[in-house]
Amino acid sequence: MNNKLKDTIEWFDEYHQGARYGLEGKVLRQEESNFQTITIFESIKYGRALLLDNCWMTAEKQEKHYHESLIHPALCGSKIIDNILIIGGGDGGSARECLKYEEVKSIDLIEIDSKVIELSKKYLTSILGDGWTDSRLNIKIKNGIDWVKTTKNDSYDVIIVDGADPVGPAKELFSHSFLNNCKRILKPGGIFATQSESPEAFHEAHINIVNSLRQIFDFADPLYGSVPIYPSGWWSWTFASMKEANYLYPLESRIIEISKNCQIWSPRWQKGAFSAMPAYIERELIK
Amino acid sequence: MNNKLKDTIEWFDEYHQGARYGLEGKVLRQEESNFQTITIFESIKYGRALLLDNCWMTAEKQEKHYHESLIHPALCGSKIIDNILIIGGGDGGSARECLKYEEVKSIDLIEIDSKVIELSKKYLTSILGDGWTDSRLNIKIKNGIDWVKTTKNDSYDVIIVDGADPVGPAKELFSHSFLNNCKRILKPGGIFATQSESPEAFHEAHINIVNSLRQIFDFADPLYGSVPIYPSGWWSWTFASMKEANYLYPLESRIIEISKNCQIWSPRWQKGAFSAMPAYIERELIK
Repeated sequence: MNNKLKDTIEWFDEYHQGARYGLEGKVLRQEESNFQTITIFESIKYGRALLLDNCWMTAEKQEKHYHESLIHPALCGSKIIDNILIIGGGDGGSARECLKYEEVKSIDLIEIDSKVIELSKKYLTSILGDGWTDSRLNIKIKNGIDWVKTTKNDSYDVIIVDGADPVGPAKELFSHSFLNNCKRILKPGGIFATQSESPEAFHEAHINIVNSLRQIFDFADPLYGSVPIYPSGWWSWTFASMKEANYLYPLESRIIEISKNCQIWSPRWQKGAFSAMPAYIERELIK
Repeated sequence: MNNKLKDTIEWFDEYHQGARYGLEGKVLRQEESNFQTITIFESIKYGRALLLDNCWMTAEKQEKHYHESLIHPALCGSKIIDNILIIGGGDGGSARECLKYEEVKSIDLIEIDSKVIELSKKYLTSILGDGWTDSRLNIKIKNGIDWVKTTKNDSYDVIIVDGADPVGPAKELFSHSFLNNCKRILKPGGIFATQSESPEAFHEAHINIVNSLRQIFDFADPLYGSVPIYPSGWWSWTFASMKEANYLYPLESRIIEISKNCQIWSPRWQKGAFSAMPAYIERELIK
């Protein structure tokens, strides 16, 4: 145990439908922004963590499960990855994974809540660190819904939606109008990627987002993995594209370099994670 | 919410290394057996649950994740499945999955703690139910370590180890001498299966059990899935065999019938779950 924490430890729990998941540690900072309650918690197990409205979002020693799963199927799969759009992702983890690719020329990171970025920069220093000043990263404090509405057609090679659960400010990130705009501003060979909730704890939201993407794009497939700090610990990310399901096939030219620096992701893991759809979900999804 | 629970609800948490996972409900029964503290908890989310020494073991509306993952790769993979051995498994869930196969002629279920069976029969009625009286099921209240020591060579087509974490009475279920005896009493074309802990919350135990099985058998592979009530929610089961890795390939003749009655398991899911090994585990396992 970290000695400096010993005197003030407490449990912080996220509650979800009759279950709770807690970490031991202490609250370092809590603020009300214009959008939500933001908490920075120093945990013994996973280091510093970020909570929004009392839900665990990320933790320094745990965040790779989430960020590697969201980013690499998209960035290893799209032939061109010059221009990336990230909606949300104010902790910086998704941007860090994108910055691993030398080919990436520009990342627009559209975060609605400047306080999330401010506190992540200050407290979660191991997540993006020096990457915050990378000249390829363009941070804009804007509403992502408006951003995709007003962006011109065929603007991005990859679009990443790294938002919270579909309640509060992130609710519209699961709407048809938002997803249709994402398709419109995505280049024809590009890939769209979004976190798509737990197939267990957010069963209905998960089915809805995958089915919506299958209606809007030509190809859409969920990938299943583990995020121990999220409700049920079982999570999903869904990838979509127009011409072919290119997110299923990481390009050889990128595999070696990216694999070296990953904790979870590998071509083997990715292939398995796309296949590991539980039977009850397979029965409910449209083909 | 179940109305009859409203007045007496409380949280019951399992603590593990600076994290805790709790369910809301009430304790129905708590007993000290000769081996452990046994708790029956009525949860709002997952129905009635069993805890051993304050660790979640199973819950009526959650147990299929665990039992389908442990049983079907073994029983769909072994050409002959006449005689099955289950070590542990006192809640009855593993036996139920085995009894789905008409080909199975006999199941020896060796549980060390009669109290676990007594309380499971009484409180967790949805798990095995009428199956407890199936004439193919032979329940023996014995120490599983002794059982495999004194059983003659080539006795079983499939051996299932359905034990708790490798502390307390289940500790020796991860030892080389136990595993060597399992190999000795397994028929040449048979399959050995064990729960093999979380690659995250029990990282070292997971690596050790897989590596041990790779040393003792000719083939051994872990499969990764989700058990939300266990530490980290991320779990594994490892399968081993002598002549070929037959646990990887479910027999066509059994797939349709078994798939119909499964919530999680399908040939697609199984294939993915065997592949979805995170990069950091792949680096640590012996080949």
